[in-house]
Order: sequence, then structure tokens, then C-alpha cells
Amino acid sequence: MNHFIYADNAATTQLDVSAFEKMKPYLLNEYGNASQPYAFARAPKTALKEARQVIAECIGAMPGEIYFTSGGTESDNWAIKGSAFSGINKDEIVTSSIEHHAILRACEDVEKLGYSVVYLPVDKQGTVQPQTLAGTIGKNTRLVSIMFSNNEIGTIQDISTLAQIAHDKGALFHTDAVQAVGHYPINVKELGVDMLSASAHKFNGPKGVGFLYVRSGTDISSYMSGGSQERGLRAGTENIASIVGMAHALKMNIQDLPANMEHLRSLEACLLNLLTSGKVEFIRNGGSNTIPGNISLSFPGHNGESILHRLDLMGICVSTGSACDSKETQISHVLQAIQLSDSVAQGTIRVSFGKNNTMQDATSVGKALLKIVR
Amino acid sequence: MNHFIYADNAATTQLDVSAFEKMKPYLLNEYGNASQPYAFARAPKTALKEARQVIAECIGAMPGEIYFTSGGTESDNWAIKGSAFSGINKDEIVTSSIEHHAILRACEDVEKLGYSVVYLPVDKQGTVQPQTLAGTIGKNTRLVSIMFSNNEIGTIQDISTLAQIAHDKGALFHTDAVQAVGHYPINVKELGVDMLSASAHKFNGPKGVGFLYVRSGTDISSYMSGGSQERGLRAGTENIASIVGMAHALKMNIQDLPANMEHLRSLEACLLNLLTSGKVEFIRNGGSNTIPGNISLSFPGHNGESILHRLDLMGICVSTGSACDSKETQISHVLQAIQLSDSVAQGTIRVSFGKNNTMQDATSVGKALLKIVR
Repeated sequence: MNHFIYADNAATTQLDVSAFEKMKPYLLNEYGNASQPYAFARAPKTALKEARQVIAECIGAMPGEIYFTSGGTESDNWAIKGSAFSGINKDEIVTSSIEHHAILRACEDVEKLGYSVVYLPVDKQGTVQPQTLAGTIGKNTRLVSIMFSNNEIGTIQDISTLAQIAHDKGALFHTDAVQAVGHYPINVKELGVDMLSASAHKFNGPKGVGFLYVRSGTDISSYMSGGSQERGLRAGTENIASIVGMAHALKMNIQDLPANMEHLRSLEACLLNLLTSGKVEFIRNGGSNTIPGNISLSFPGHNGESILHRLDLMGICVSTGSACDSKETQISHVLQAIQLSDSVAQGTIRVSFGKNNTMQDATSVGKALLKIVR
Repeated sequence: MNHFIYADNAATTQLDVSAFEKMKPYLLNEYGNASQPYAFARAPKTALKEARQVIAECIGAMPGEIYFTSGGTESDNWAIKGSAFSGINKDEIVTSSIEHHAILRACEDVEKLGYSVVYLPVDKQGTVQPQTLAGTIGKNTRLVSIMFSNNEIGTIQDISTLAQIAHDKGALFHTDAVQAVGHYPINVKELGVDMLSASAHKFNGPKGVGFLYVRSGTDISSYMSGGSQERGLRAGTENIASIVGMAHALKMNIQDLPANMEHLRSLEACLLNLLTSGKVEFIRNGGSNTIPGNISLSFPGHNGESILHRLDLMGICVSTGSACDSKETQISHVLQAIQLSDSVAQGTIRVSFGKNNTMQDATSVGKALLKIVR
């Protein structure tokens, strides 16, 4: 392709080359099993320890509160199911209607086992209202799980307020922060969450690795059972190379976070200004507080899938809904929850810029969209 | 280290350099999300399809019967829990007392939810007797799970006979073949198994990836719930680089399988001959039918941990029990199940050679052991 613009960073991101370089020794020569007691296991064991420290520092946690997983989906499944099967004697989970399917389907799984799950509505911006949560949590609620920022429309929730409400009523609080970690300032202690999910490939780390933050003292059972890795809570031979790559990628993103955020806000503004000055009819979904770079756009009367394919022919990658649901052609549960009319919802695409995108990219995407929808 | 011999291949193996080279493009440039509909997702999508075909061919399966996971532990957890939560209306699982902890602890998890689990004894060679299984399976048995070859002592089970017995009595059959795939001829159709677990890093593939074979038509529920990847049965963004590396590593091992097996048998013979001619007292555990390269040795009156550490000082890596339990100092459940006396069990180490070991390595390990135990 002569001209290629990747604007689907909410689906996945490019691995930082420096993270790849950090991974290489553990893929090639330092292949020892980190759980073994001999000298050859020292380098991977040390790397594991350092990666845990780096990640903990990036989110304001203690190293012992970081548990490595195979990605965001596992972290989410673990948070829901590990909490459901813990010693707590309550059988209700409260979540929102716009969660990622990794949360929603994990909730369905535990519903089949007799748990009750309440799905909170959101307003037209995709926001969970604190008073709605406060009115819903009962004595039987063991866990509240609300995502930090939505993958389709970018809406950021008021997590610290929601977590406080959960705690006041004696429930644990989990947040799926897969779209936010590495892209927005996160301090788990200030947020007051008990658990937080993250996925490396969303912040320029490798695919197939992630972590779950679990506040020290939180009652959660193992989800991946077996060997005694990860203090007995997550079994399986440690995936050192990917863990090292994830830690380095997160460190890089966090180091440049203010600059990255400002850069992404300017790309957003550039694209939106082009559309506005081009006098096309469009709606930007997700309200005024969205994760930087995530731009959900509805073009009433148009078809999102057609827009995606026409952009693709121009060498531009965007998404319709979330990547995981690209094969499902019906209107996404998120667009339904924010009550878009069918004709508006069908004309929706998601442009998601990343730190590697340029102002030129934003201009090109805007101009391409004008060609298609005007 | 001047002199370094890695003889702990049952714990993990070195990634094939050619597999690393195959992974590189998907780590660096072809980073598109394989579930997206645009052109940039074509290369990863094609790679995913090809990897599935390669792996299916290596074990005599159809591509649609291969489900990618994060490793052996996930595959085992999925087989046990995905089967337990499927539509089958029976609540008993039969397994053996020498399974990997990924099976045993997954079984404990479902026991807590009301399932009943029967743990079959083994004989002194570590073999599950077919008549014992036949006498145990009842009308309520939904699943039998017996490992292909044991990780600590190498014993190979008569899987096709055991699977036939399970099927005759209306139960599904799973085998944890993590130690066998890539090291022993496996054809799932000839074996007649319904499910089979594998882990890439045990056959010179990368860590953090594996697969579960699920025979077409088998009633199993999703374990990792969320997006619609892997035909809706295993959610999570596809870990293309690792999947590609796994497929290539397996292909390489299978291509050279007869030669590798013969080579490993000769290394075993070399080591055992040295010990015998050195007139040290030792027992080789696991009986006469063991996975090539896996040599469990008991030196009565000695201490396995001390032997390991003295070998380590000589630059030789071996194991005491399984890697996952290296921190647990009590006698392993496997050595208990084959009824070793405590003094014999305490003097046990596992030497596990891989295809990269040489006859010189085997000689050096043998001579080093003679120095320590004679």
C-alpha cells in the first residue's frame, strides 16, 4: 500500500520496537523456567520481578498486587468468576450494560450457576450515574464491575466515586481498564478499586499477555488453577518475554503520557474540525469526557460498514464496533444502550488514533471521510 | 558459565530459532487484529488459518477442531471446567492420582461446586490399569481425564484403550498431552480422544500459548468468555505471533520425530549405562514405557534437592519434581502415588533431555551424578 494509516488503536496497537528488543533475550537465550531453583532460572526470575515492579509503579500499586494473565479477557473473566467463587457469601453482581463482552459473557456464565447479575443502564453519553449504582447495590451485592473507559465510544466513568459507593455498601469494586491503562493517568489507590484489568497489546505491548491488579487482602479465588505461580493464584509457566515486553511498553507510554494525551487531543480536534467545516451531518458519541484518541462518529443515513470498506480501499483502518464483534452485523449493545436510533447507529464508525499517528494522518482520515459521507 | 548443560526439557524447552524468525513479522509489522474486516488484517488472519492447519495435520485432527489457548494450564482447566459446565446432565469426573496440578486443581474447583471427582490409583510404574477405569466409570460419569505421559516420571498410558472404555460407558475422554505432543506420535482419531491439551513451550515453541483439541461435536462450554474468536469458544484477541511460532515449532519437531526419539533413547541409554557400570544404587521410575528423554532417577539415602544444587554448581540443570512445584518441598503426589518409600522418594531427580542435547551432555550428566552419589 502506498498510503497506509492505522486508526484502529482501540482494537490493537503496534508493539514498540524497544519492547521487542527487551523481549528478544527471553525468547532466545534466557529461556529457563522462572519457577526452577537453579542458576539458569535467575535471569527470567529477576526479569519477572522487575516487570512486576515497573507495572506496579505505573498504576500506583504494590508489586505483590500485580498478577500476570494472558490478556484482558482472562483478567476480566478472573475478576468476575474469581470473585463469584470466593468465600464471600453473597450472590449478586452489579455491572453496566456497556461493558466489554469479556465482562458481560463472564457474568452470563455465573448467572447460569445461580448468581444474579444486574446490568445498569447508562445515559446518552454512556455514563453510569452514581445515584443509579447507589440505588441498585443491595446487601447481597458482592461485586460491582464498571469499565474505566468504553472501547466503542470512549466514555470515561467516574470510577473513584463509583468505587466509593460500592465500598460504602460493602461490595468489592472491579474496573475493566483495558482501554485506559497506558492512555490515561491511573492510580489504583486514588481510584480506590479492588481489582483492575489491563491488556498489553492495547498499550503497544505484545498480544497474549495482560495483568489483573488485585488489592492486597481482596478475597478472590484462582481462575487458572494448577501450579503455584503468581503466589498460587494464577497457574501456568510464566510467559517471561511477553511480560517483559508489556512492562517496558507500559513504562514508555506512562513516561510520555501527558505529551501523548495532548497529541491525541489535537488529532481528535483536527478530525472533528475538518468534519464540522466540511458541513457534513455527524454526531460524536461518548460525551465530553472520552479516552484520548477514541472517536466514535455517527453519520445518519449512512452505513458504517460501507464507510469502513471505502476507507479500507483508501488504505485507512478504522472499526465499526469493537474488534471482537466485527463479524456480528447487528447494532452493538453499546450503541443500543446509549439509545441511538437505528439509522444513526448503522452509520457509526470508530476512529481510534494512537501515539504513532500524525496530524497528517488525522487530516487524511478527515478528508477521506468527507469524500465518502458528503 | 564455561560448561552449561540444559537437561530440564520437561520444564521448558528452548524456542527454535526458525520459529522465532517466523514470529518476528507478526510481532513487528503485521500487528493487525485478526478479527478485523480490513485488508491490514489479512496477513494475520491467513497466518492464523495456516497455523491451525499445520497443527491439525501434526496430530491428525481437522483444523476446526484446534482451539488456541494461553498454554497447557488453560487447556486443562478448559477441558475440565468447560466439560463440567456443558449441557451434559451428569456430575462425576474420573481422573488419575498422578495428573498435573492443572488437572487436579481444576477438579478441586469443580468439586467445590458440587461435582464428584474420582482419583484413580496407579501401579508402581505409574500406569492406570484399564480394568480399574472400567470398574470405576458409572452412569453418572461425564468425563474421564488421563494424562498421555507423566511430567515427573514419564509413564505413557494406554490412551486408546482408556478412551474406548470411557466411550463404551458413555463418558467423554480428555488427555493432558502437554509432555507428549511433539515428542511422541499422536493421532487423535486413532487414539479416539474427545479432547487433548498441548503447550507450545514444551516442544520448542514460545511460552504463553497452547491449544486444546476438541473433537467436532463434543459438548463443551466456553471457559474464556467474551468476544467471538475461535468460533465463539475461546475469547481474546488472537496471539498471532505466538500461534505462528507454536505451529512452526511443532511442524519441525514432528518432521524429525523418529530421529529425535531414537536420539533421546540413546541419550537415556548412555546415562543409565554410566550409572549401572558406576555401580551406584539407583532406581529408574516410570516403568518400561516412558516418554523419550524423561528419566526419573531415585538414589536411595540421598537428597534430590542437594543433588540438584550440586549439579547446578557444575552447570547442569535438572529438576526434582515438576517445575510448577519446585518451591514445594514435600514429596510430590506422583512419587507418593507410585508408592516410593520416603527415603527413596527424597532422593529423586528428573533428568529430561531434549532434541538439542548431545551424547556428550548425557555422558557429562552421568559422570557428574556418579561424582555426587557414589
